[in-house]
Amino acid sequence: MRLNKLISLMNERNFDGALISPGTNLYYLTGLTVHEVGERLTLLIVNANGKYRLLAPSLYENAVRNFPVTFWRDGENPYDKLAWILAEFHLSDGRLLIEDTMHADWLINVMRLGLFEFYPLSSLVRELRMRKDRGEIEMMRHAAKAADRVFDEILSWDLVGMRERELALKIELALRELSDGISFEPIVASGKNGANPHHEPGDRRLRKGDMVILDYGAKWRGYCSDITRTIALGGPNERLVEIYEVVKEAQEKAYRAAREGILAKEVDQAARETIARAGYGEYFTHRTGHGLGLDVHEEPYIGPDGTTVLENGMTFTIEPGIYVPGLGGVRIEDDVVIHDGNGKRLTRAERELIRL
Amino acid sequence: MRLNKLISLMNERNFDGALISPGTNLYYLTGLTVHEVGERLTLLIVNANGKYRLLAPSLYENAVRNFPVTFWRDGENPYDKLAWILAEFHLSDGRLLIEDTMHADWLINVMRLGLFEFYPLSSLVRELRMRKDRGEIEMMRHAAKAADRVFDEILSWDLVGMRERELALKIELALRELSDGISFEPIVASGKNGANPHHEPGDRRLRKGDMVILDYGAKWRGYCSDITRTIALGGPNERLVEIYEVVKEAQEKAYRAAREGILAKEVDQAARETIARAGYGEYFTHRTGHGLGLDVHEEPYIGPDGTTVLENGMTFTIEPGIYVPGLGGVRIEDDVVIHDGNGKRLTRAERELIRL
Repeated sequence: MRLNKLISLMNERNFDGALISPGTNLYYLTGLTVHEVGERLTLLIVNANGKYRLLAPSLYENAVRNFPVTFWRDGENPYDKLAWILAEFHLSDGRLLIEDTMHADWLINVMRLGLFEFYPLSSLVRELRMRKDRGEIEMMRHAAKAADRVFDEILSWDLVGMRERELALKIELALRELSDGISFEPIVASGKNGANPHHEPGDRRLRKGDMVILDYGAKWRGYCSDITRTIALGGPNERLVEIYEVVKEAQEKAYRAAREGILAKEVDQAARETIARAGYGEYFTHRTGHGLGLDVHEEPYIGPDGTTVLENGMTFTIEPGIYVPGLGGVRIEDDVVIHDGNGKRLTRAERELIRL
Repeated sequence: MRLNKLISLMNERNFDGALISPGTNLYYLTGLTVHEVGERLTLLIVNANGKYRLLAPSLYENAVRNFPVTFWRDGENPYDKLAWILAEFHLSDGRLLIEDTMHADWLINVMRLGLFEFYPLSSLVRELRMRKDRGEIEMMRHAAKAADRVFDEILSWDLVGMRERELALKIELALRELSDGISFEPIVASGKNGANPHHEPGDRRLRKGDMVILDYGAKWRGYCSDITRTIALGGPNERLVEIYEVVKEAQEKAYRAAREGILAKEVDQAARETIARAGYGEYFTHRTGHGLGLDVHEEPYIGPDGTTVLENGMTFTIEPGIYVPGLGGVRIEDDVVIHDGNGKRLTRAERELIRL
């Protein structure tokens, strides 16, 4: 179990304990699939001596097996049981790791149970999580394939006249058919809406002459994919076609730059310089990519300040874009794994400009 | 703006400030629809003197208007800007309210900016939120009507042979057509699965002889509905028909009990006693209901320990159920508002047993 790796790291870095609420870190470390039910306190308690126990509502009595656990019932005060476990684990003060996404009201209650210094758990776990093992990469490959297959499906649909939000829903349903579900709400940004990289699909109907940005992903056994393709309906604006070629070249350059031993920011630079040289530097307004795994955004981030040294097993997106207000935008995104020293695409849908 | 009500309450209860991250409380207090983008610090800072300012990523530069705001850019440390606002607001120590759902890592960073005592914001805001005004009740009525209309649609579908998860998806799509979306993932629990009140829709196909629990809701302008109906396919088991009548009576008794001036637990008792008298007490394993509004679970909770005195404008569910392991279950749920002293149903779909 990966929890033992965390316990080793805790000892190395002088942490006394960890409190881990449900989320992707808990799943990663233990394989437990408990989630929070109706704000009921659910916590894994760990100490540096290697002791650990789950505190969970009694709802989970049938779900948690072969794992040390203390249950609490509706009507009981779960923090009394937590205090009891902390005492047994000799945790009354010291340096405590806290799951980053834990709700503040839980942490406020924990503060009253000892004289602790708190630190975000992610500072340790992200080092483990960003290096994927073969099993994890298999899951990600599966999630990426589902995204590729949905892109092929999209090309067969009658897109002209469809509203952005209708297309987003159809993409979601297609992803659900081929995977465990979506990794985030699909983005469909058509025409001028493409100039906003954070556009939410709305009532605008797709029409001839549009460039349309499609950004979506699937989940498989908890692991995410995240792909973006930009397609043309009818004959698009010539300047957008030129922009497409710049983005495609930037994405390819960044992809070729990605290899073992370089810094994340070197991948970013490869994309950023290509776009700047073409005169669109000011219109590339976000990072080149982000790590991908159990979360759709995680380490390593691929930006101008990315100091992570890339290693085999790291997985991330490469997704440069150009966004021109009043005109539209283009983004091309693939999921990439560092394998045998080099970058390797997990998503493989067509990257040449498709004109429907 | 409702924020002024919070500031009054803060003065009454001796709180010095509040830090409010995006969520339903922020929306309720200010009308701002900002949400958290990629874990970027977004906070409303309030002090007891009535000063307030939003700290937000520069992504929001075009979205936030006519509201005091400080933006921070990617690459800047947002906690430096927060420290600066706290200084301007004279917040270096004292009693600070914290949005309950704020992520723990934000709170850990805030701890380093002063000598504060932290308290959950909900302890004050829930008192405001559980008393709805007319505008809010109008939104809830709309969300409830969407749920009613979807129930009528369901009755027209060919249910026998359909998988639980397919039916859940169809319900979700029908709700999206009539509202802003779902208030939670629809529950479909058929046959023996009905005995688990927390059942997640699976691959089981609905068949003749099943009782099927359908539990779902819509959102309208942020406000939730939440309805449950249990229907029979073909001729169901006679014991389940008997159970249905007990649940229906318990729901009606609780509904009639609900009025201004009584305790929430008296509504619970009305349902619980009816079920106990019929001999099924041990199979009613949850609370009779929960408050409903911007969140699908909020105050006032309608359980055996519910000490809230019901008032006009309070909205909550009444949803007794009986769950017999190995046999199945029945639950009937309506949304209710206390209006002119008495309970009034917002959801009005047929409550008699429907046999399809």
